[in-house]
Amino acid sequence: MSAPTHDRVLAIMGVGLLGGSVAAAARARGVASRIIGIGRNADRLKSAVDAGIIDAYLTDVRTGEADWNFVVVGTPVDQIATDVRSIAAVSRPGTIITDVGSVKAPICRDVGHLPDGQVHFVGSHPMAGSEKRGYEASRADLFVGRVTVVTPNTDTQASAVDSVRRFWESLGSLVVTMNAEAHDRAVATTSHVPHVAAAAVASILKPEQRQLAATGFRDTTRIASGDPEIWVPILLGNSAAVLAGLSELTDSLQSFKKALQEGDAERLRDLLQNGKTSRDAL
Amino acid sequence: MSAPTHDRVLAIMGVGLLGGSVAAAARARGVASRIIGIGRNADRLKSAVDAGIIDAYLTDVRTGEADWNFVVVGTPVDQIATDVRSIAAVSRPGTIITDVGSVKAPICRDVGHLPDGQVHFVGSHPMAGSEKRGYEASRADLFVGRVTVVTPNTDTQASAVDSVRRFWESLGSLVVTMNAEAHDRAVATTSHVPHVAAAAVASILKPEQRQLAATGFRDTTRIASGDPEIWVPILLGNSAAVLAGLSELTDSLQSFKKALQEGDAERLRDLLQNGKTSRDAL
Repeated sequence: MSAPTHDRVLAIMGVGLLGGSVAAAARARGVASRIIGIGRNADRLKSAVDAGIIDAYLTDVRTGEADWNFVVVGTPVDQIATDVRSIAAVSRPGTIITDVGSVKAPICRDVGHLPDGQVHFVGSHPMAGSEKRGYEASRADLFVGRVTVVTPNTDTQASAVDSVRRFWESLGSLVVTMNAEAHDRAVATTSHVPHVAAAAVASILKPEQRQLAATGFRDTTRIASGDPEIWVPILLGNSAAVLAGLSELTDSLQSFKKALQEGDAERLRDLLQNGKTSRDAL
Repeated sequence: MSAPTHDRVLAIMGVGLLGGSVAAAARARGVASRIIGIGRNADRLKSAVDAGIIDAYLTDVRTGEADWNFVVVGTPVDQIATDVRSIAAVSRPGTIITDVGSVKAPICRDVGHLPDGQVHFVGSHPMAGSEKRGYEASRADLFVGRVTVVTPNTDTQASAVDSVRRFWESLGSLVVTMNAEAHDRAVATTSHVPHVAAAAVASILKPEQRQLAATGFRDTTRIASGDPEIWVPILLGNSAAVLAGLSELTDSLQSFKKALQEGDAERLRDLLQNGKTSRDAL
């Protein structure tokens, strides 16, 4: 873990589960001297100050002192690029901006080059979360032992990438660097397709069958409880890769159906073993 | 919870995870005065005696004293009917036999009427388990708070059904009674289709993407670690209902694909909300 960076003034745009957990983790690990929450809802932000998650808040980035030097944008994925650009416009030279969006290529493309070249954006995706929502579900240990993917462009300043990497490491995360497109293909398989599959499995359950839904069903469908408002922009933002993954999934399900129709125990065993081998390798 | 039945001599055929947990639970709750394990592998059964799971063992039901009066058959689903008939043939009058198989209609059909009419079979399916295997993974609390489905035929003796119901309740289970066919359709949706879906999702993961598989992926695919040797007979034993469920699943996935292809946020939100509503109702 890197040494505490007490001169970091941290701004969090969007103090929800992830933004709130970044704040809680930064405070717990002493890597920020001050934490400013930025959002639209003053009542919610006041409560987050009262709860000790943040020290102060702003509802408009243009009205504050802009005394932060490190920004984490935790707003919904379809707003992140706009929010990055708006906070970049009022930030001091040298400020590093990152985000927590689960789709990276559209965000990195839409942020593009920041105007004055002295404020740096590096995309991040901490692979941690919960089906819960809101800063009330924040956890200082949310990132511990979890992978955070950092996705610099080829022309992102190396020191900015380093700074973002060290920030996530200081919260206990294991940092992996890859380009935004490779990230998006991978999370289609590891996160977005499983989310759709969980929702589809959950939706075929009839009310009268609920009493027979045991832990297997609950585990398989847990992520289907996620907020559709969060997931629609994620799926649409990564639709090409998600569609490719869904085609692989339906092909695999077709193979199962064929083996069942033919009563082919050998083939069924192979298909189940493929899944088991892949799962057991985690 | 019913009062301890100290005069119950319990025989467990197949001392694996489920059979072993029945033994451990019965011992912990004082509902058996003696527990006899029955299986093929004398070494494993000896170890189970040493581990205190069972009191004694037999490798051939025809050679023992048959001093049991209650039997739980925990062998693989495609062997249960045969095992029920073979232990019924040597059991004393009044003996009650049940099982733990996760498919009920073929078992209840294949057991049929037991020869002398004085030994009674009532099918059971405790909705508890684990991706682990073997008596070493046994847990005395495995059935606590879990549903056990009891599936009498229309001509099963009422007192035998009561006895089986009270047995599972004495292990902490919540008993639901339904006919074997309705059970099989329900578990296709709540267990067998989710198992296939989990295996299919796991199998599309590429090795280089493993580092991005976080808790969502792990939860969704956890049951794919189940032993294919156990699952092949379950899926084949319930193939009509599983095929119907898989068709519903692929129809739902097709709707997701269409919404993504058309960039239809409203439709995508509805589909995700359907899944969420169903999951949240559990």
